[in-house]
Amino acid sequence: MANYIDLRSDTVTLPTPEMREAMYRAEVGDDVYGEDPTVRRLEEMAAEIMGTEAAMFVTSGTQGNQVCIMTHTQPGDEIILEEKSHIFTYEVGGIGYLSGVQARLIPGKRGVMDPSDIEAAIREDDIHFPRTSLICVENTHNRAGGTVIPMDTLEKTYEVAKKHGVPVHMDGARIFNAAAYLGVPVREIARYADSVMFCLSKGLCAPVGSIVAGSRDFINRARKFRKMLGGGLRQAGFLAAAGIVALEKMTGRLKEDHENARLLAEGLNSIPGISIDMETVQTNIVICDITGLGINGNELAGRLLEKGIKINGGSGCLVRFVTHYGIDKNDIIKTVEAVKEITAELK
Amino acid sequence: MANYIDLRSDTVTLPTPEMREAMYRAEVGDDVYGEDPTVRRLEEMAAEIMGTEAAMFVTSGTQGNQVCIMTHTQPGDEIILEEKSHIFTYEVGGIGYLSGVQARLIPGKRGVMDPSDIEAAIREDDIHFPRTSLICVENTHNRAGGTVIPMDTLEKTYEVAKKHGVPVHMDGARIFNAAAYLGVPVREIARYADSVMFCLSKGLCAPVGSIVAGSRDFINRARKFRKMLGGGLRQAGFLAAAGIVALEKMTGRLKEDHENARLLAEGLNSIPGISIDMETVQTNIVICDITGLGINGNELAGRLLEKGIKINGGSGCLVRFVTHYGIDKNDIIKTVEAVKEITAELK
Amino acid sequence: MANYIDLRSDTVTLPTPEMREAMYRAEVGDDVYGEDPTVRRLEEMAAEIMGTEAAMFVTSGTQGNQVCIMTHTQPGDEIILEEKSHIFTYEVGGIGYLSGVQARLIPGKRGVMDPSDIEAAIREDDIHFPRTSLICVENTHNRAGGTVIPMDTLEKTYEVAKKHGVPVHMDGARIFNAAAYLGVPVREIARYADSVMFCLSKGLCAPVGSIVAGSRDFINRARKFRKMLGGGLRQAGFLAAAGIVALEKMTGRLKEDHENARLLAEGLNSIPGISIDMETVQTNIVICDITGLGINGNELAGRLLEKGIKINGGSGCLVRFVTHYGIDKNDIIKTVEAVKEITAELK
Amino acid sequence: MANYIDLRSDTVTLPTPEMREAMYRAEVGDDVYGEDPTVRRLEEMAAEIMGTEAAMFVTSGTQGNQVCIMTHTQPGDEIILEEKSHIFTYEVGGIGYLSGVQARLIPGKRGVMDPSDIEAAIREDDIHFPRTSLICVENTHNRAGGTVIPMDTLEKTYEVAKKHGVPVHMDGARIFNAAAYLGVPVREIARYADSVMFCLSKGLCAPVGSIVAGSRDFINRARKFRKMLGGGLRQAGFLAAAGIVALEKMTGRLKEDHENARLLAEGLNSIPGISIDMETVQTNIVICDITGLGINGNELAGRLLEKGIKINGGSGCLVRFVTHYGIDKNDIIKTVEAVKEITAELK
Repeated sequence: MANYIDLRSDTVTLPTPEMREAMYRAEVGDDVYGEDPTVRRLEEMAAEIMGTEAAMFVTSGTQGNQVCIMTHTQPGDEIILEEKSHIFTYEVGGIGYLSGVQARLIPGKRGVMDPSDIEAAIREDDIHFPRTSLICVENTHNRAGGTVIPMDTLEKTYEVAKKHGVPVHMDGARIFNAAAYLGVPVREIARYADSVMFCLSKGLCAPVGSIVAGSRDFINRARKFRKMLGGGLRQAGFLAAAGIVALEKMTGRLKEDHENARLLAEGLNSIPGISIDMETVQTNIVICDITGLGINGNELAGRLLEKGIKINGGSGCLVRFVTHYGIDKNDIIKTVEAVKEITAELK
Repeated sequence: MANYIDLRSDTVTLPTPEMREAMYRAEVGDDVYGEDPTVRRLEEMAAEIMGTEAAMFVTSGTQGNQVCIMTHTQPGDEIILEEKSHIFTYEVGGIGYLSGVQARLIPGKRGVMDPSDIEAAIREDDIHFPRTSLICVENTHNRAGGTVIPMDTLEKTYEVAKKHGVPVHMDGARIFNAAAYLGVPVREIARYADSVMFCLSKGLCAPVGSIVAGSRDFINRARKFRKMLGGGLRQAGFLAAAGIVALEKMTGRLKEDHENARLLAEGLNSIPGISIDMETVQTNIVICDITGLGINGNELAGRLLEKGIKINGGSGCLVRFVTHYGIDKNDIIKTVEAVKEITAELK
Repeated sequence: MANYIDLRSDTVTLPTPEMREAMYRAEVGDDVYGEDPTVRRLEEMAAEIMGTEAAMFVTSGTQGNQVCIMTHTQPGDEIILEEKSHIFTYEVGGIGYLSGVQARLIPGKRGVMDPSDIEAAIREDDIHFPRTSLICVENTHNRAGGTVIPMDTLEKTYEVAKKHGVPVHMDGARIFNAAAYLGVPVREIARYADSVMFCLSKGLCAPVGSIVAGSRDFINRARKFRKMLGGGLRQAGFLAAAGIVALEKMTGRLKEDHENARLLAEGLNSIPGISIDMETVQTNIVICDITGLGINGNELAGRLLEKGIKINGGSGCLVRFVTHYGIDKNDIIKTVEAVKEITAELK
Repeated sequence: MANYIDLRSDTVTLPTPEMREAMYRAEVGDDVYGEDPTVRRLEEMAAEIMGTEAAMFVTSGTQGNQVCIMTHTQPGDEIILEEKSHIFTYEVGGIGYLSGVQARLIPGKRGVMDPSDIEAAIREDDIHFPRTSLICVENTHNRAGGTVIPMDTLEKTYEVAKKHGVPVHMDGARIFNAAAYLGVPVREIARYADSVMFCLSKGLCAPVGSIVAGSRDFINRARKFRKMLGGGLRQAGFLAAAGIVALEKMTGRLKEDHENARLLAEGLNSIPGISIDMETVQTNIVICDITGLGINGNELAGRLLEKGIKINGGSGCLVRFVTHYGIDKNDIIKTVEAVKEITAELK
C-alpha cells in the first residue's frame, strides 16, 4: 500500500510518528465518567481554538454532524442544506433516520449558498408547514471542490439566520483548510456558527476522530445524543492524544497541500479533454471534468491504478483528486505525467 | 359565507344535497372490524375505477400520501420528489417525521420531472448512500398550477422506476382532473404507479376523505399504518356514502371547472400587470404573477375580500385561484371585473 | 347484523336517529381553514365540559392518544404506562414509531398504578438515562375490566407528577363511564391531567371521533401533529354534529350500561367454571375467567355466535363482554342463559 | 487515581502494557475503505471465536446493541427485553429513538427470563398489535448481579424464538465471563443467538471497542447503520490492535475476577446489615442490599471514598461492586475491612 500515490481522499492519511508516540504514552481513564485527562485536554484545546465555550470529541465527522442536527432540531422540522452537501449526500440518510427532519436543498454557486436564497427558503408559520430549525453550511465544500465560503457571505448568512431565530451549523470537516486559504484564525470562521464540526483525521492526520464545538449548554445536550449513538468511549485518551498532536503540529502545513493541489490542477487542466473550473481550486481538492477523454471516472481510476496511483472514480465524468500529508510535489508531477500517458493511449 | 365567491381552493366545496341524503340513509357498521358495508362498497368501487386489486379509505390526502410513503419505504431511505410537490411543501414535514426518509428534490418543468433527471438521481449502492426506495409524482401538480403529466412522460417515468426496481407513488389528489384534461379513463393514468392517492373531497365535493389504491398486499400493510395514525374509524360509512356519490356523480363535471379556470385565466392575463403562463392552465387552477401590480398576494386578497371574493394571498407575488363546483361562469366574470377595478384603483 | 346481541365492544354502537338528523342538517365549512362552525361548537363544548382552555376533534382514540404523546414528549424520552394499558397494547406500537419513546411499564392493581411505584420509576438525571417526560393513566381501564381510578389515587398521582415536573396524560376513552361510576362531573376527573383524550364513539354512540382537551398552547401544538397524521379534515362538521348530540344526550344514560354489566357479571359468575373478580365490575365491561370451562375464548365465542351472541374471544381464557346503548336487560338475560346452555353442553 | 481501589465498574480497566505496545506498532489503513488490516484481523478472529460468519468492530457496547436492534427490527415493532436489562435501562432510550420500537418488559428471575413468559409475550397477528420482531437476552446480566443464563434455558429460549420466527439478540457485553462460569467455549453460548454483541473493554481491558457477530448478511446490513451512527472509523487499527490482545490474552484470567467477587461477597455478606443473594454471585459483580445499615448507596460510596475505595452509589439501597484486572485479592480484603469499619462507625 505504501508505494501507491493515494489521491482518493485525505482520510487515508496515516498518523505521524509523533502521534504514535503520543498515543503510546497517553494518560487515560474512563471518559464516560469524565475521567480521561487526555480527552479533557483535547476538548479544552479545541474549544479554545474555535472560540467556543465547550467542545466534545466524536468518533467521526458523520457522528459530529448528525449529533449536532439531533441537538438543534426536532422531528418534523425542515433544515436548509446546500444541494450537494456532504450531510445530504454521504451520511447514509442520517438526517431522516436520526433526526426525522426533511432537507430543503438550495443549489449553491461553487458550494456557497446565496444568503437571499436561504432567507427565501425559511418557512413562515402555517399549519401545513414544517418549522425551519437549522441552516447548515459546509466549509470547505467537498463536492464543490474544496471551496471556501467568503467571509462576507458567511457573515450575511449568519445575519439572516439570527434575524429569523434559526441556528447555523457548520460542517467544517476541513475548516482548517478554509482558514489556511483565508489567512485567518479558525475562530474567525467559527464565530459565524452556533455549532461547528471539524475533523482531526483528514488533512490533520489523526487516525480517528472529530470535534463538535459550541456553547456549554449545546455540548451538554449533545453528549447525551453521542452516548446514545455509541460514541461514549472508555479510554478514549489514546485517540485524543493523536488529536492533540494534530491541532498542535499539523494545521500549519495545510498550505503545502493547497500548493500541491494547485500544481496538480494546472497540470491536469493543460491536458486536452480535461477541464477544471480553476476558481474552485482553493484548497486541497481538485475536481476534473473528463468528459473530453471519452472514458468515465471508473475507467480512468482503473488505468491510474495500473500506474500506481489511486483515485476515486465513479460512473460519471467528474473525478476528484485530494492532496494531503502523504503526497509531495513529486507525486503530483508523476500523477500529471500518468494522466498524460493515459490520454495519449486513448487517442 | 354563502355569499362569497370562494376561489381559495376546491377544498371549500360543500357536499351536494344528494350526498347529504346518502349520508342520512347510510348503512354503517364498525369498520375496524371490517363490518361497515358502505365503506366496503366505496373501497371496492374505488379499486375498480383505479384498476387496482384493492383500495382503502383514508381521512385526508395527507394521510393517504404519508401512509403510502410509510408502506413503501424504510427509515434512512431517500425518496425522489418534485421540488414543489405537495408532499414536500404542505405535509408538515411528515416524510421525515413519519417515515424517516430524506427527499431528493428534482425541479420539474411545470411540475413535471424529466425521467432522465429521475434516473440520474437514483442512488448507486454504496456504504455512504441511502437507498432510493420511492419515486413520487404529483398529477395534477398543485403548485405548478394544476398541470398534468403527459402520458408518455408518465410511462417513461414508470419504465425508469421499474428498471431500477423502485416503486412509484402518485399523489393524484386531483387525478380526475388529470383524466378529464387528457380525456382518458383514470385507470389509464393509475396504471403507471404502484400506489395512487386521490381525494373524494376537493373537486368531487365529498366532505371528508381520500382513497389509497394499490395491490392487495400493499393495502393490507397500509391498513396497519392507517390504524397507527388514528385513521381506523368506526362507523365511517357516513363519509363513505358521500364518497360513493362523489365517484358516481361528480367526476363527469370537472371539465366545467376547467373551462371556468381557462375563462378566468384569459380574463386575468389580459389585465396589465398580471402575467400568467397560459400553458399551465390545464385544469382548475390558475396561478398569476402579480408582480406588475406593485402589491403582494396578501394585499390583493384583502382588496378582493372587500369585494366579496376570497383567494389565498401570501407574502409573495404568485397568487392562486381555484375553480370548483361552487363557482359558476358568472362568478368568473365578476372576479375578473373585481381585479380590473382593483388594478384601476392602484394606478 | 341487527339481530345479533353484540357484546364485543361499545365501539359497535350505531348512531341514534337524532344523530343522523343532526348530521343531515349540519352546517359545515373547511375545518383546515378553521371555518367549520359545527366543529368549532363541538370543540368549545368539549373544553367547557372538561374544564380546559381548549379542545380538538380527532378521528379516533388512537389518534388522540398518539397526538398527545407526540406533543408532550421528545424522541428518546421514557414514558410511564400501566402494563396492560390500551396505549401499549392496542395502538400498533405507535409510541415507538410516532414519538420514539420507550415505555416504562408499571403493573397496576386492577389497572390502577400505585403513585409510589410511579414515583420510583421516574428517572434521575444521568448520561445513561432517558428523560421521563410523561405519565399516562387510563380511566376507565379497558383490559382491567373497565375499572375506575379512585379520586384520591388520581390526585396523588398528579401530585407526584407535579413534584417531578412531569405532565400527565389521561386516556379517558371512557371517562364518562368513570364519572358516572364516581358520581362526579367529568371535569373533576379531568383536572388531574394535563391532557385528556375521550371518545364520542363507544358508549356515547357517535359514529366517528374523539376529543383531545388541554391548555390552549398544548392544543395549538397538537393541531400541527394532527395535520401531519392526516387528521386535518375538511367538512368535519357532519361528524361533529353527531358528537354534539353525544355530549348533550348520551352521557346521562351510561349508568344503565353499568347496571346491565353488573347483572351480566352476577349471572355469569354464578355459573360453575366461570370466575369474575366482582370488584372490577364497576362500569360497562365484564371480564370472565373461563379456565374452569375447559374451553378457550375463541371456542366460547364460536358457540355463542351460533346462539346469536357476539363476543371477542381470543386464544386465552379471559373473555370480555361490553354493554352499551344497543344492549338492554333482556339481552343480558338471554346471554346468561346462553352461556349456561353452553356450559351444560360441555359437561 | 492510581491509588484508589476502584470497584465501580470493569469499564475502568486500563490497557495492559502489551496492548500499548500492540497499538504503537499497529499496521493501519482507512477502514471505511475496508483497508485497515488490523481491524480485518480482529473481525475475523472475533467471528472465529464466536462461531459466526462475520463480525464487526463497534466503538461501544451501546453502539453494538443499538445497531443490532436497528438491523433486526422495523419501526413500530415490539421487542422483548428483560425488565432490568442494560438496553432498556442504560442506553439513553435508544430503542425508541433509533429503532422506533417499543419494549415488552418481562421480569426475569435473577435476570433470566422464563422461556414460557417469552412465548406468552409474542404477539399474534392483529390490526391493533405491533409485530414482535426481536427477543433480547443479556448474558451475563448486569443489574441482576452478573448472573449467567443456564444453557438449557438459553436453548429453550432459542427454540421458542425459532418456533415463532423471531430472531434473538444477545447482549453479551460480558459473554466471556459467562463462558468462564459455565466452563464452555464462548461459541457454545453464542450459537443460541442470531446476533451477539460483546465488549473488548470491561473485563478484557481493551481501551475502546466492542464486537457485533452474526451472519454475513446481517453484518453487511449492520455496517451501513454503523456508518450512519458515526461508527465508521478511519485508522481504527490502533483500537483493534488492543482488541486482539484482549481476545488472545485476557479471556483466560476472568476466573480470577470471579474468585475475587466471591471472596468479596462472602466478606460483605457476613457483615450485619448487609444482605447479598449469594446465588447471584456467579461472575465478577456483587450486588449488596445495605438497607440494614441505615444509609443509602451514595452515603456508603462517600464513606468508602474517604478510605480510598470507589464504588457507584445511588439514592437507593442496592450497591454494586465489580471486580476486574485492576483488583487483586488484597484489595478485596481491604474493601471488606473498610466496610466493616464504616458499619462500626454507624452504630
